Amino acid sequence: MSNALKVTAPEGLPFVDFEREFDAPVEAVFNAHRDPALVAKWLGPDGYQIDMAEWDFRSGGTWSYVHRDPEGNAYEFRGMFHTVRENEFAIQTFEFLGYPDTVSIESMRFEDLGNGRSRLSGHAVYPTLEADELGAAGATTAWRRNYPRRMVTAPAALRRPGC
Amino acid sequence: MSNALKVTAPEGLPFVDFEREFDAPVEAVFNAHRDPALVAKWLGPDGYQIDMAEWDFRSGGTWSYVHRDPEGNAYEFRGMFHTVRENEFAIQTFEFLGYPDTVSIESMRFEDLGNGRSRLSGHAVYPTLEADELGAAGATTAWRRNYPRRMVTAPAALRRPGC
Repeated sequence: MSNALKVTAPEGLPFVDFEREFDAPVEAVFNAHRDPALVAKWLGPDGYQIDMAEWDFRSGGTWSYVHRDPEGNAYEFRGMFHTVRENEFAIQTFEFLGYPDTVSIESMRFEDLGNGRSRLSGHAVYPTLEADELGAAGATTAWRRNYPRRMVTAPAALRRPGC
Repeated sequence: MSNALKVTAPEGLPFVDFEREFDAPVEAVFNAHRDPALVAKWLGPDGYQIDMAEWDFRSGGTWSYVHRDPEGNAYEFRGMFHTVRENEFAIQTFEFLGYPDTVSIESMRFEDLGNGRSRLSGHAVYPTLEADELGAAGATTAWRRNYPRRMVTAPAALRRPGC
């Protein structure tokens, strides 16, 4: 049983796909995305502070947060939850305000694998190939840096305090 | 001065671009998108009735409507306005509930061309090439049928009553 993160970015298409399995029930993985206190534990790079302004993980809800790096630079993100079905599926938009007017859309599928295990798979779509390819300032960089990390570090959010 | 609708769908990419000029000021074209009473006049194919449940054309607003064809079949659509800047720019999501969990994202740029003329250009992004290519049931078909039509018929919404 491998819990490695798999990321696929097909050449010439504005898509990034990811998949990761967890040694945790699908309800726990879903809850680690729904509960802003848990999200704040794993979202973003190490050493960054997160100010979670809004995280309303339901169909029609919105979200926004600010990441601050150790030098105090602020990075603001915002989006909406278009569709959320408990323990099953979510679609959200994603915008980095340092790269304004460029909104990507991400779907996430939560699957129960039985025996207390689950799989999360996602599909992100960018509005241009440039947005998908651009470097440090681009939305994809944020995605590649933070989002796979969130897959890697999410188990920390799944542990109960004291465990 | 041509007001023809231009639609570009690049091969092998999940994008559809459109552009149309109007013999109307940018404020009028923008308002024909913001005011649900005006939107209801031009959105959708001829002979379809529209029930506009919600149309909150501002950053963070949501929208939903039902189209009914002459045989009484209902087609439900919904989405969100991610970003709206008056007379300038908007980003919205778009979902046809007959093709659920497949959300496209559309940006629209409103430009003042002077002399009471304006240009509207848009960029739609689909989450899969299949969603971009599928036929009658697909989101793109709705887009190709309705959205270019809306560009063609929008001037009707721009006319004041009695003009």
